[in-house]
Amino acid sequence: MNRYGPMFGPDITFLGVPRCTLEEPSTYVDADIVIVGAPFDGGTSHRPGTRFGPSAIRQACYLPHDGSRPSLALRVDGLQDLRVYDAGDVEMFSGDIERSLSSLESAVFAVARAGAIPIVLGGDHSIALPDATGVARQHGLGRVSLVHFDAHADTGDIEFGSLHGHGQPMRRLIESGAVRGDRFLQIGLRGYWPGPETLTWMAQQRMRSYEMTELVSRGLDECLTEAFEIATDECEGVFLSVDVDVVDPGMAPGTGTPEPGGLTSRQLLDAVRRVCYELPVVGVDVVEVAPPYDHADITAYLGNRVVLEALSAIARRRHDATPGNPPWNPHQPLLDAR
Amino acid sequence: MNRYGPMFGPDITFLGVPRCTLEEPSTYVDADIVIVGAPFDGGTSHRPGTRFGPSAIRQACYLPHDGSRPSLALRVDGLQDLRVYDAGDVEMFSGDIERSLSSLESAVFAVARAGAIPIVLGGDHSIALPDATGVARQHGLGRVSLVHFDAHADTGDIEFGSLHGHGQPMRRLIESGAVRGDRFLQIGLRGYWPGPETLTWMAQQRMRSYEMTELVSRGLDECLTEAFEIATDECEGVFLSVDVDVVDPGMAPGTGTPEPGGLTSRQLLDAVRRVCYELPVVGVDVVEVAPPYDHADITAYLGNRVVLEALSAIARRRHDATPGNPPWNPHQPLLDAR
Amino acid sequence: MNRYGPMFGPDITFLGVPRCTLEEPSTYVDADIVIVGAPFDGGTSHRPGTRFGPSAIRQACYLPHDGSRPSLALRVDGLQDLRVYDAGDVEMFSGDIERSLSSLESAVFAVARAGAIPIVLGGDHSIALPDATGVARQHGLGRVSLVHFDAHADTGDIEFGSLHGHGQPMRRLIESGAVRGDRFLQIGLRGYWPGPETLTWMAQQRMRSYEMTELVSRGLDECLTEAFEIATDECEGVFLSVDVDVVDPGMAPGTGTPEPGGLTSRQLLDAVRRVCYELPVVGVDVVEVAPPYDHADITAYLGNRVVLEALSAIARRRHDATPGNPPWNPHQPLLDAR
Amino acid sequence: MNRYGPMFGPDITFLGVPRCTLEEPSTYVDADIVIVGAPFDGGTSHRPGTRFGPSAIRQACYLPHDGSRPSLALRVDGLQDLRVYDAGDVEMFSGDIERSLSSLESAVFAVARAGAIPIVLGGDHSIALPDATGVARQHGLGRVSLVHFDAHADTGDIEFGSLHGHGQPMRRLIESGAVRGDRFLQIGLRGYWPGPETLTWMAQQRMRSYEMTELVSRGLDECLTEAFEIATDECEGVFLSVDVDVVDPGMAPGTGTPEPGGLTSRQLLDAVRRVCYELPVVGVDVVEVAPPYDHADITAYLGNRVVLEALSAIARRRHDATPGNPPWNPHQPLLDAR
Amino acid sequence: MNRYGPMFGPDITFLGVPRCTLEEPSTYVDADIVIVGAPFDGGTSHRPGTRFGPSAIRQACYLPHDGSRPSLALRVDGLQDLRVYDAGDVEMFSGDIERSLSSLESAVFAVARAGAIPIVLGGDHSIALPDATGVARQHGLGRVSLVHFDAHADTGDIEFGSLHGHGQPMRRLIESGAVRGDRFLQIGLRGYWPGPETLTWMAQQRMRSYEMTELVSRGLDECLTEAFEIATDECEGVFLSVDVDVVDPGMAPGTGTPEPGGLTSRQLLDAVRRVCYELPVVGVDVVEVAPPYDHADITAYLGNRVVLEALSAIARRRHDATPGNPPWNPHQPLLDAR
Amino acid sequence: MNRYGPMFGPDITFLGVPRCTLEEPSTYVDADIVIVGAPFDGGTSHRPGTRFGPSAIRQACYLPHDGSRPSLALRVDGLQDLRVYDAGDVEMFSGDIERSLSSLESAVFAVARAGAIPIVLGGDHSIALPDATGVARQHGLGRVSLVHFDAHADTGDIEFGSLHGHGQPMRRLIESGAVRGDRFLQIGLRGYWPGPETLTWMAQQRMRSYEMTELVSRGLDECLTEAFEIATDECEGVFLSVDVDVVDPGMAPGTGTPEPGGLTSRQLLDAVRRVCYELPVVGVDVVEVAPPYDHADITAYLGNRVVLEALSAIARRRHDATPGNPPWNPHQPLLDAR
Repeated sequence: MNRYGPMFGPDITFLGVPRCTLEEPSTYVDADIVIVGAPFDGGTSHRPGTRFGPSAIRQACYLPHDGSRPSLALRVDGLQDLRVYDAGDVEMFSGDIERSLSSLESAVFAVARAGAIPIVLGGDHSIALPDATGVARQHGLGRVSLVHFDAHADTGDIEFGSLHGHGQPMRRLIESGAVRGDRFLQIGLRGYWPGPETLTWMAQQRMRSYEMTELVSRGLDECLTEAFEIATDECEGVFLSVDVDVVDPGMAPGTGTPEPGGLTSRQLLDAVRRVCYELPVVGVDVVEVAPPYDHADITAYLGNRVVLEALSAIARRRHDATPGNPPWNPHQPLLDAR
Repeated sequence: MNRYGPMFGPDITFLGVPRCTLEEPSTYVDADIVIVGAPFDGGTSHRPGTRFGPSAIRQACYLPHDGSRPSLALRVDGLQDLRVYDAGDVEMFSGDIERSLSSLESAVFAVARAGAIPIVLGGDHSIALPDATGVARQHGLGRVSLVHFDAHADTGDIEFGSLHGHGQPMRRLIESGAVRGDRFLQIGLRGYWPGPETLTWMAQQRMRSYEMTELVSRGLDECLTEAFEIATDECEGVFLSVDVDVVDPGMAPGTGTPEPGGLTSRQLLDAVRRVCYELPVVGVDVVEVAPPYDHADITAYLGNRVVLEALSAIARRRHDATPGNPPWNPHQPLLDAR
Repeated sequence: MNRYGPMFGPDITFLGVPRCTLEEPSTYVDADIVIVGAPFDGGTSHRPGTRFGPSAIRQACYLPHDGSRPSLALRVDGLQDLRVYDAGDVEMFSGDIERSLSSLESAVFAVARAGAIPIVLGGDHSIALPDATGVARQHGLGRVSLVHFDAHADTGDIEFGSLHGHGQPMRRLIESGAVRGDRFLQIGLRGYWPGPETLTWMAQQRMRSYEMTELVSRGLDECLTEAFEIATDECEGVFLSVDVDVVDPGMAPGTGTPEPGGLTSRQLLDAVRRVCYELPVVGVDVVEVAPPYDHADITAYLGNRVVLEALSAIARRRHDATPGNPPWNPHQPLLDAR
Repeated sequence: MNRYGPMFGPDITFLGVPRCTLEEPSTYVDADIVIVGAPFDGGTSHRPGTRFGPSAIRQACYLPHDGSRPSLALRVDGLQDLRVYDAGDVEMFSGDIERSLSSLESAVFAVARAGAIPIVLGGDHSIALPDATGVARQHGLGRVSLVHFDAHADTGDIEFGSLHGHGQPMRRLIESGAVRGDRFLQIGLRGYWPGPETLTWMAQQRMRSYEMTELVSRGLDECLTEAFEIATDECEGVFLSVDVDVVDPGMAPGTGTPEPGGLTSRQLLDAVRRVCYELPVVGVDVVEVAPPYDHADITAYLGNRVVLEALSAIARRRHDATPGNPPWNPHQPLLDAR
Repeated sequence: MNRYGPMFGPDITFLGVPRCTLEEPSTYVDADIVIVGAPFDGGTSHRPGTRFGPSAIRQACYLPHDGSRPSLALRVDGLQDLRVYDAGDVEMFSGDIERSLSSLESAVFAVARAGAIPIVLGGDHSIALPDATGVARQHGLGRVSLVHFDAHADTGDIEFGSLHGHGQPMRRLIESGAVRGDRFLQIGLRGYWPGPETLTWMAQQRMRSYEMTELVSRGLDECLTEAFEIATDECEGVFLSVDVDVVDPGMAPGTGTPEPGGLTSRQLLDAVRRVCYELPVVGVDVVEVAPPYDHADITAYLGNRVVLEALSAIARRRHDATPGNPPWNPHQPLLDAR
Repeated sequence: MNRYGPMFGPDITFLGVPRCTLEEPSTYVDADIVIVGAPFDGGTSHRPGTRFGPSAIRQACYLPHDGSRPSLALRVDGLQDLRVYDAGDVEMFSGDIERSLSSLESAVFAVARAGAIPIVLGGDHSIALPDATGVARQHGLGRVSLVHFDAHADTGDIEFGSLHGHGQPMRRLIESGAVRGDRFLQIGLRGYWPGPETLTWMAQQRMRSYEMTELVSRGLDECLTEAFEIATDECEGVFLSVDVDVVDPGMAPGTGTPEPGGLTSRQLLDAVRRVCYELPVVGVDVVEVAPPYDHADITAYLGNRVVLEALSAIARRRHDATPGNPPWNPHQPLLDAR
């Protein structure tokens, strides 16, 4: 049986981690993490190109691609302290969104069923539907909350005559029951979409959406703390969905629907760290990196570092769960106790 | 009733020609030409972005967008001497190729049925299937030959699990009977695709494909002359399909599947002129202009000029058909008889 | 009588708002806002290209160009709740600055005289002279204060042998009496220009200029509050002039005279919101977006959002002025009371 | 007295040749060639940026900037065998075209009066008016023919309300009598401008314009030979004006009004060589290199090489004029007789 | 005797300051500052291009290159109040790192010996070894502390079989005794390099490294204050080494090893100001500006402004050292006391 | 034992061909071709970046990376009909040219000794010295002729104090006796380097260098035929060295020392085909592809296709050598005899 591998370009893995093959569960039976590429941009309403996101995120690093990344900040090696595999890309023809999303959901579910955390590299945000659904099928529909960094709510209804697209996955997730509306936490929204009708629908679902105005006036950290409490109420796990456009397009230009006025890269990395260190994350996706619009790979680098930050924080969380290990201290100087 | 207009960006027409609305035949009842945008890249196997092709081709010009373009070479005004309308874009969701191609076919057929020549601005080459089919439905299945400029044969079978995509339209056209295999003229093929199996299928269809080696060793003009004879044998009309990647990617970088070693821009423009001046063209598409990979809009400019060259030559052909008008003479100095 | 329309490229309006024609006052007699393009870069001392600013700002948006933009933050629709028209571009030949600025002043005055707020899309900053003068002619010379976001003071005297240019408009405005020197509020200055002589002149005019050092050490919000008090003292209206280079060039590279160390995009948007919500704005210009130096349109997007932020805040200000309407609350969660 | 030097960026000379100062004739009394920068783009109808042309052309070379360039093809050193100086840039404020062109004319005339050949680095093509006029004032009005490589005829009348601009210099030159209409040779025209009225005017002036169609069908070399005969009939000198947009924009993207279907770089270099070797050139300009639209400096390199090709051919022409020196032989192998 | 001048491109000086020649001490005998270019990228582990850093940093400014830059913030003119010379570039063949670093060390030492502060424009960070060593040879080995802004610790051991490279200079400096490990202050580290072994070595040297987590949680200013106390303990002078990649790659993309999550440009400029105003700086280098990866020169502009900020602060420090001069006050409004 | 793999980025092979390890001869004992990466740009005199050439050339293709490329033109599959392996990259630290070239020579010799043809992917042209030397060590010093496509002669002597660099390999090869001067065939030279002294040295070595003037006036094909006769006189094998800058920079901008006026991509591909079909090629290198200066990967694509063209022609040559097989016929229509 063949491993499919990347759809576009050569067959590589995320920074050189070992490969696995989704069709052969034995190849990832011991996995903590399985990386899955979703090279799909058929759901994009504007600039396409995220089909090259998985390939770009996998290789956007100047260090050797040797399957090791010791975090200076968290003092763990997310690629070594966890058992991380890369399953390559799911075949996703951009011209057939229904079939493609279905294939991805099967892949994500296979990973979750094996007891591993799937980290899906998008691709456009359409994939959040199969990503979170695949995880919820394993952990229980309605039992996984969703922490969602994004400039956009992605709760649209039918667009271009289709139920599916990168502006709609969050509505579909709530409608299907995969995720409870009142366990949906959105961080970084801004701009001029969606309109009142959709916002009313969102309010009816009791979603909790933090627009940039609130984040700026109250402070991002306070808002995150509040959101984390909601996320863990009556939910066993958290799915983290990071749309890179939550960062200001001035810092992350390689994306399809840029909305000025976003977070800084530093803020996003710190927030992702907190989510993965403080919450029981059971799935992650990083979406909307569009290499054709990138410059000097800086947005791809950011996507790569979001993945590493998540892995490092998950590893540190597990490390600190061992009795006797002291908790992580952000004030500790880098070279103390080395 | 609303005119749909361009899918991406503002609602503009090709260089300022008047608008028409496909749903209202009265708006183009007197048309010679109707321009239709096909902002679709869901069939692209590699670099996407041709969804922005229609918008880019429509506006890639430094002259006033005033619906007039007097050709220095052909001494006609393709936008004034012909009645040219722009119908805006067909709604084509890139995530649903079957529905999108079907919508486009209806639009093209509506134009052809009204007695006008459709000029479709792609979009990826998947659209050649509905483009040529829509025309053939009007002029007779198998009664329209196809002159096809391209680096690629586009005769693939199933790819990514789909019958449709930008590498397959020519096979579908022959299989359906819309175009006869032995009236298929391909100019500019090169590179490493398709493989022997597909080539054998093509030979069985009695297609006539001019690879660059033959074009260089025999000369482009001689090959065109030969092809034109085939094209007009037992066919009433000719559909011209221009994939901008027939030009060398060094000169036309804004495309999805660049294959080095192609024609120059000058060669393509001259060849398009000959096709539209010497043959009874009944439909045209210009495809695979991918703005995200373009530089300084040079590929969009080329696409724009291919359209203008076609329009000018069609106008000149009609002008010269009037008894008493002398034929066009390429040796005539620009300012003679002004 | 013809509407002139955009000078460069196709004739479009800002995000699809209705058109008006300056020569026909009846077309904007009921306007709250009239957008005017000033495609002029003849006054630029370094990198040109802002002539394409109006076209770029008008269309830098991934949403439908449908004349509607409901603000998530302010809960109004700046394009619907206000009557907004776009008058197209004033003809401004970059090779003749005196004639061009004069034409623009007439256009701006026509808008102001009609009781509408002109929003001028630059163009280089030379246009601030006719912009603010045109408004002051209606509201009273010396009766309009000027809030000016910029990296540069733009108070130079004769340069390249000319009284006019993008480094000089603020001096000309004060000299002419259009704007009082002590009602000139400059936010974001930094770098190495102008020199002591000009600074002394500025001090003599009693201008109030906030250099980045003061903004960082005291806080932008405190400085704005202080400036707002000055702006409304003995002035009936405020003209807001936003040079996009006030933002750090790392986030807004598409500009002519980049000066590192500026505001973030988020800071600028929030500041523009405060100006337009808290002050009686009677005119706006957004200048120095230079598309040839932009990447992935991010600076054009920022310019577009500055305009929308201004419109939204003006709309909200008017809404809140109605007795019984509660004031805007930046702490209110997005989905509360939907 | 100060030498003005380049207007934009640091004060450098063309590939390191010595400086001179126009105001001090003693500094170039022995000059064969004086290079003059014309950093002006106020006459540009579309994309600006040619103000950076002089700076870009001066330094677009990977070899040491040491004032020496031995031509492999022509076996002379254009920078050493001729006495070449660089006078820096004329101050040309882009916002005041009349004053700027007047200043440039004075500078060019000063060079011609000193017995040297001016080589003017543009800047947009507006400058051809002062360039050729300045030379004709020295050599006799109507006594200098003009060989003009361009995609455009540049014979427009009033545009944007101005007599001057980059689409009009050729009309102004003929109207003023500086150059005879029937000694105007245009090579490379194509596209959709100007319209019939202007073409008729051109025909009335008995201009000789070679559109690309004629060049392709007859051959560039044959056309050049024909043109050279006209150029030297009743004229003592030839002014060579090279608009870089005569080359296909696919090969020379860094220009303001790109028109597909042009010459190759190789063809232009060979044609410039022939002009300067076979004709008595008394002035040259190289215009319309627009760095903001260039990529990897390739258009600036081309501009630099056009200058060097002209200088080399002028030097070789002088060398071969010495009795006993054999004429240049293009068939001679590079290493023969070394 | 010849001044070597810049290795790549024309011979220019930093913003037009006067030249000097290192081989002729009389040309800089009175210098306060000597700028030295180090166009070397042979030590780069990933993206090269910093060899063009000196040329880019020298000219990245839109103001006249006239050797004067009055700082708005600090009210001094760093180029006029100090005697600043530019010695051009040291010849550094990128293919021979040992010879190149040795040549640079000699150059830096020559400057320091003359009593001037060398400001070295890199080039990759390999050059910090000869930069700091050259200074320490004059001021005493171990008597100069090092303040180091960087995303990376640059304390690697042998890489690619070489002791030298841009990831290793800091280790070499400590090993040689040029700089004491416990007087090494690193600001801005982050990411996934180096690994534990190297960190342990660093801890053993008692280096003090501020990772971004600590900087964010404690505040940059507090950390700087703490670092400054260490830097001046038992050291007479401070060497400031600024790797531009300490800034977030979203704002400074033109660099070789981008690591997301860095400082803003504003933070870096303010921090450099504090270092040079509060500490006795005896040498500076600004490294890792890689123009091939830059966009619109924004990273080169940042490098230029880092140099100017350092010069301005040094000038202000000297000014304030004069009895009677009041200290600099960051709260002072720009136009106060003008 | 470890396979080193690519130095920069992930470990991939040329279009998916199998791997081999140079240290383990058994892994390539049956090879016809071994591809070797030489990621080195330490010898570059101007723009660096060719260190990323091997990685870019290996993956610049839109087709599946499946180790198969059936040539339309030559009717063979260069990757399947030959046994092709990819040995990854030789470790070449750009800061140590002597050591790096020595390592590469060992690698090339190992391949040649195994009876395979090495195809080396550069890297800058410095590598031609070890490439041709490594092959000559196997086939006999002076027994291998060199066919060299380039804009530059690369016969410089000491530069930047070094015997080695990308402008000098051809001199070193002749001096060492590895290649006879009179079996050196250079195609495509042009421009202004080297100077007379070096040309005289070249003439003394009886090199045969075809400058573009000769190629244009006599025709490329005639010159190639002449050169091929020299190449096979008293030599058993031919080394083909292709510097991508032989193509016009307008078509191949991604290179370090662009010289306008070169071949078209089509001409280069056809010439490479002739060399490898008509001559007994024993080694190949493809150099000077510099990705940082490329656009849309077009130069990398060209490099990839040069390799494939060489492989296809070698395969076809072997195929035609079998008795009974008809020779390749460039006039044969693509679909004939399929």
